[in-house]
Amino acid sequence: MGRAPRPRTPLQAAALRLLRDEGPLSRAALVDALGAGRARVAAELDELVAAALVEDGGVAVSRGGRPSPLVALRGDLRFVGVDLGATSLAVAVGDSRLDLLDVVEEDCDPREGPEPVLDRIVDLVDEVTDGRGTAALGVGVPGPVSFLEGVPVSPPLLPGWNRYPVRDELARRYRCPVTVDNDVNIMAAGERWGGVAKGMDTFLLVKVGTGIGAAPVIGGSVFRGVAGSAGDIGHIRVADGPPCACGGDGCLETVFGGAALARDALRLARTGESPALAARLASSAVLTARDVGVAAAEGDPAAMALVRTGGRELGKVLAELVNFMNPSMLVLAGGVARLGHPLLAEIRQTVYRLSTPLATSSLPIVLSELDDRAGVLGALVSASDELFAVPAS
Amino acid sequence: MGRAPRPRTPLQAAALRLLRDEGPLSRAALVDALGAGRARVAAELDELVAAALVEDGGVAVSRGGRPSPLVALRGDLRFVGVDLGATSLAVAVGDSRLDLLDVVEEDCDPREGPEPVLDRIVDLVDEVTDGRGTAALGVGVPGPVSFLEGVPVSPPLLPGWNRYPVRDELARRYRCPVTVDNDVNIMAAGERWGGVAKGMDTFLLVKVGTGIGAAPVIGGSVFRGVAGSAGDIGHIRVADGPPCACGGDGCLETVFGGAALARDALRLARTGESPALAARLASSAVLTARDVGVAAAEGDPAAMALVRTGGRELGKVLAELVNFMNPSMLVLAGGVARLGHPLLAEIRQTVYRLSTPLATSSLPIVLSELDDRAGVLGALVSASDELFAVPAS
Repeated sequence: MGRAPRPRTPLQAAALRLLRDEGPLSRAALVDALGAGRARVAAELDELVAAALVEDGGVAVSRGGRPSPLVALRGDLRFVGVDLGATSLAVAVGDSRLDLLDVVEEDCDPREGPEPVLDRIVDLVDEVTDGRGTAALGVGVPGPVSFLEGVPVSPPLLPGWNRYPVRDELARRYRCPVTVDNDVNIMAAGERWGGVAKGMDTFLLVKVGTGIGAAPVIGGSVFRGVAGSAGDIGHIRVADGPPCACGGDGCLETVFGGAALARDALRLARTGESPALAARLASSAVLTARDVGVAAAEGDPAAMALVRTGGRELGKVLAELVNFMNPSMLVLAGGVARLGHPLLAEIRQTVYRLSTPLATSSLPIVLSELDDRAGVLGALVSASDELFAVPAS
Repeated sequence: MGRAPRPRTPLQAAALRLLRDEGPLSRAALVDALGAGRARVAAELDELVAAALVEDGGVAVSRGGRPSPLVALRGDLRFVGVDLGATSLAVAVGDSRLDLLDVVEEDCDPREGPEPVLDRIVDLVDEVTDGRGTAALGVGVPGPVSFLEGVPVSPPLLPGWNRYPVRDELARRYRCPVTVDNDVNIMAAGERWGGVAKGMDTFLLVKVGTGIGAAPVIGGSVFRGVAGSAGDIGHIRVADGPPCACGGDGCLETVFGGAALARDALRLARTGESPALAARLASSAVLTARDVGVAAAEGDPAAMALVRTGGRELGKVLAELVNFMNPSMLVLAGGVARLGHPLLAEIRQTVYRLSTPLATSSLPIVLSELDDRAGVLGALVSASDELFAVPAS
């Protein structure tokens, strides 16, 4: 396949983003929205048609009754989003409006190293696109990322991935723009595109999965900080407690999060403090955060205490961040966030109690709506943002 | 005096900011920088000359040897900055380049209420401007502010000031644009204009005065959050400790900061645990944070322990914020920040130990360079930003 076409001018980039965000528009509406002359817009659109990014698409009847030809992104334009988690891999293909056409997901252990995992990514991308390639590809990985270089940077959960050229490898293979970002950042982009934070400019998304991370959205974009590590809250020290994969100890992740819950569940099952967890361990040989959630929902006191204590520790950190950032919404996402009402109640109570009234007076604390799909959707958003970026002059 | 003139078009606003930031420019340089046609720039500049915002100022010789007339902001353009603290009031006047021409400062207790304090502000403004008024005026107040409405919002240190129309009162009197902002935000603007963070786009300023507050600068502007309370870190709960003016207890401000240090100093003096503080109390009847600093510098163990313990608690909170925000610099400002090396050492050590390597690998932790002047300078910046803002279309 040939190299994917890109917009050549800022006006072309703006037109493409408009068509992605609004859907098919009449040429008259595009002229109005772009604030440029009719002849220039027509010429730029012709270039986009020739580049196979845009197509003429029927006719709209304007208010004056005059028919105005519609313009749309090409119906065969495809974006691919990849969401690599600590234990899973999801790959989705979306159309020009970023509607999901297909998603495949499988268990994955990224600790096997970048080469075998990239092979699986390529297999799944080829599967969802029927080998036809993609206009742009977005990837989320569980750990710190240098967004500008497209490489993971010392990711604790991804030994062997430090500075591996994920972006360049995939860009070479698919000959299209590729973005690599932190998995929490792409979840935030997904929730902003089509979830509970739709269209919101200033909010905080916190993912509680195997680890814990946050993505502050400011001015409509994920704020990455100067080294790309903004939102890295999993290694805030909250206890004198257990050693952490990061080299420190007492990190928030060692007290709460999927890995910490699984560890604590095993202890409670083995000591018999939690009959419910002991029974689940006997029947399945392993325990995960999900087992803690089920046991808590069944009313097991030790499991409920685990959820409440963890929720309170997380809530204390979130209360500080709410004071500091003053967001308009706090979105909780990730597997552990699905532990249900007791966790959400504990976090809400702690944040509302400890944050200042000004910061919480109109602060919804809500669960992700998109759940497993936030990551791949956000990766599609990131991919299309990159393809439709204003070209460097 | 008549109403102060303002730019009428986005191009005029851009030209004014350029002349403020760069100083006098040739018409040719302005045409280049503004990216507009020569004739249009000439016409817009004529309007600015007529509005008494801009003046012709000599001749520059261009590289081709052709003389090009220089344009400058009017030499008689004046901005006023007001920095109201918990115990002091400073008012400065600056010229068109925001160079300070005069600063007056006096003790002030804003708890007397807004009317008498505004009277003092007006007296001092009239003094520094010789009663000639100002093109724009910026005010910083110690507490949460609704920047859009120009009013303090439930400020714990300013009883009686809740929603008092500070901006509108001063705008009516001086018939010019007025901004009201939090005192920490204007310090950050001042350090970015002419201090240690000059020109820096992403940094965190932390003021430790009577209270404790922070100003996150993102993309070159102070980030205010959705309700204007971003950076409000003084009420992060760090202890089971003492009640706070905010209604909570154990807030960072109750553990460290000027008021907390003065309280602890008094205790150490009275119990005799600190001979140095007891001696200072005997000679002056009151103790402040400054006495703690002097006693610590003299080697008094109890005073040094106070500084170190407080620095560690503050450092823990700052470590979390550094992880979350990943700024390129951390600036410490305010009276208590001047406690000297032991405080700075404790904060540095705590932040570097507790934050992630990625967030601290190139993070200078430095003291404010402007000190007392950061606030009034930032208020001048805020005032001129407002006057030179792009007019609403």
